[in-house]
Amino acid sequence: MMQGVLDIPEELRSLEDIIASGFGGVERIFAEQLVSDLAPVDQMCEHVERYRGKMLRPMLVLLCGAAANPELSNILASDDPSKILTDAHIVSGAVCEMVHMATLVHDDVLDEAEIRRRGKTINAMKGNETSVILGDYLIASAYELCSSLNSPVPSRIVGKASAVMCTGELLQLHNRNNYELDEPTYFEILKRKTAALIGAACELGALSTLGFDQQDHPTVQALLGFGTDLGIAFQIQDDVLDLTGTEASVGKSVGKDLEKGKLTYPIIHHLSNASDKARSLTLIEAISHGDQSGLPELLKLVEATESIEATQDMAMSYVQSAKSRLSSIPEGPGRPMLQLIADAVINRSH
Amino acid sequence: MMQGVLDIPEELRSLEDIIASGFGGVERIFAEQLVSDLAPVDQMCEHVERYRGKMLRPMLVLLCGAAANPELSNILASDDPSKILTDAHIVSGAVCEMVHMATLVHDDVLDEAEIRRRGKTINAMKGNETSVILGDYLIASAYELCSSLNSPVPSRIVGKASAVMCTGELLQLHNRNNYELDEPTYFEILKRKTAALIGAACELGALSTLGFDQQDHPTVQALLGFGTDLGIAFQIQDDVLDLTGTEASVGKSVGKDLEKGKLTYPIIHHLSNASDKARSLTLIEAISHGDQSGLPELLKLVEATESIEATQDMAMSYVQSAKSRLSSIPEGPGRPMLQLIADAVINRSH
Repeated sequence: MMQGVLDIPEELRSLEDIIASGFGGVERIFAEQLVSDLAPVDQMCEHVERYRGKMLRPMLVLLCGAAANPELSNILASDDPSKILTDAHIVSGAVCEMVHMATLVHDDVLDEAEIRRRGKTINAMKGNETSVILGDYLIASAYELCSSLNSPVPSRIVGKASAVMCTGELLQLHNRNNYELDEPTYFEILKRKTAALIGAACELGALSTLGFDQQDHPTVQALLGFGTDLGIAFQIQDDVLDLTGTEASVGKSVGKDLEKGKLTYPIIHHLSNASDKARSLTLIEAISHGDQSGLPELLKLVEATESIEATQDMAMSYVQSAKSRLSSIPEGPGRPMLQLIADAVINRSH
Repeated sequence: MMQGVLDIPEELRSLEDIIASGFGGVERIFAEQLVSDLAPVDQMCEHVERYRGKMLRPMLVLLCGAAANPELSNILASDDPSKILTDAHIVSGAVCEMVHMATLVHDDVLDEAEIRRRGKTINAMKGNETSVILGDYLIASAYELCSSLNSPVPSRIVGKASAVMCTGELLQLHNRNNYELDEPTYFEILKRKTAALIGAACELGALSTLGFDQQDHPTVQALLGFGTDLGIAFQIQDDVLDLTGTEASVGKSVGKDLEKGKLTYPIIHHLSNASDKARSLTLIEAISHGDQSGLPELLKLVEATESIEATQDMAMSYVQSAKSRLSSIPEGPGRPMLQLIADAVINRSH
């Protein structure tokens, strides 16, 4: 899984093996939890499982779980490195991925998207109603799975993160066609809708290692901060890809943000720096009202203000901030591995 | 709250007072949990709170909590009857109502309903996208609240019930425009989409009294069975009201089931007993394809097969079954009060 995305140096291979075997567990638990006695429900869940792509959230749960272990190097060198990851890590990883899947299914309804991971979306295949309920089923199943953990703390973290995600989406919807959207509101939306769950994934990983009563532990706090910064960087990169990518390269519908009247960082930066802001606004308004003909001109204007570069710099600064948090976690192979993930988040093209 | 619906005899008044004060707690916690630092989120939650009507689920949590207490009569007669209901009852009541609200918000999207509790629905006011996310926010908030209970058991019950509810909705959607829908499948849908949460409410009430490790306790099992039967009766009555009620009397959009190709018990019964089934099917298909002109004729045909009466008999038999479960719970005022609620469920006109 990770080898396809990352160039893993020799000295991290033993950690990579542990994470890879953890993925196997996540995939198994994910599928088991969604098994239904009703055939049509089963078929849809199998389709949704194909949405699984980068598995960023479970990867972070597992890796933060390993990185939070102060004995990581010793255990990796021991006879039984498999004890680094426990059921708590595996279950937490599956829960985070399931919550994420639920949001993808509902996002595709909101975005009227037809393509996800090069396949048809559930809403395109079965209609919006089924998609709404299927997303609800995924989120309920995630909560049910999470409550198998014998502490209410992970349920609290996942419930809270999910609620915050929704407020981020609601804030974004409230600002639809707000062409004056400012940077602070944009970042508030990102922090809520994307970074909350990625931060929770890192926190759950660390807590699964250190104990669910250790929320104030410096390692837990550092990894929560790492995940939050990384989540912001991830979403900024997503917003760039929506503007500059193609459906073929990104694997899902693109250009949806402007079409839906959502202003993202490249556009906000551009509007603050455009020599003819009125012209840019005219083009943006037309696009959000369904007329795509002005998109090439707008992209040229965005190029002139170097707004893509500025956005990538901004994403990079969040990655740097994320990496700096790692100085507070135990030394060992967890740190360089998390640094590799952090770099990969903004160097991706999908 | 209950006095408006039920005719409470003198000897149950002291229990009624306890339940009424519990309602105050449920309403307070409900509102506190949904407070957001974002004004638009707050406004929508305030609107949704107006959907609150019968508060059937919290009523059952509180009443089953009281009824499960073997010392109920003694405590009611003591100096401090207020200790009958604890925070666990209040929180569980608010959680069940919040999950129910979430399903109402999503149901209104699925049904394209415009009216709920004599007010505009969120989807009519703010669009489907906001409704989908607002429903997600309510369900996430319910889980977060539930996880405050310091045992993972209530989270497990609520997560499971929610997942089962979704499978019921998916089964229903899968059978849309299936004019051959049979009774067993109809009841499977009801059990899942409505009875699972009402059963969970009764179970949570009993567990809040007896301890969350008492899921196998005969009283808990009896009240879970009571709630499940009652939930089926409740939904059968809802299906009758959708067919025979008016928007003015029911307070929400009616006639939606046939319009949406959903066959309910009165129609299933009618089709099995119609002398000219082909004519009835022609009318039903036309209605589900948007032509309402045949509805009066269909209602006449349904009258001829006495299908409304048969449906009410079926609902009554579930109420009787629910009541029979009460012989396994402690004697005391809880039993007659639950019997009153059971009767009220099918004698309601909204």
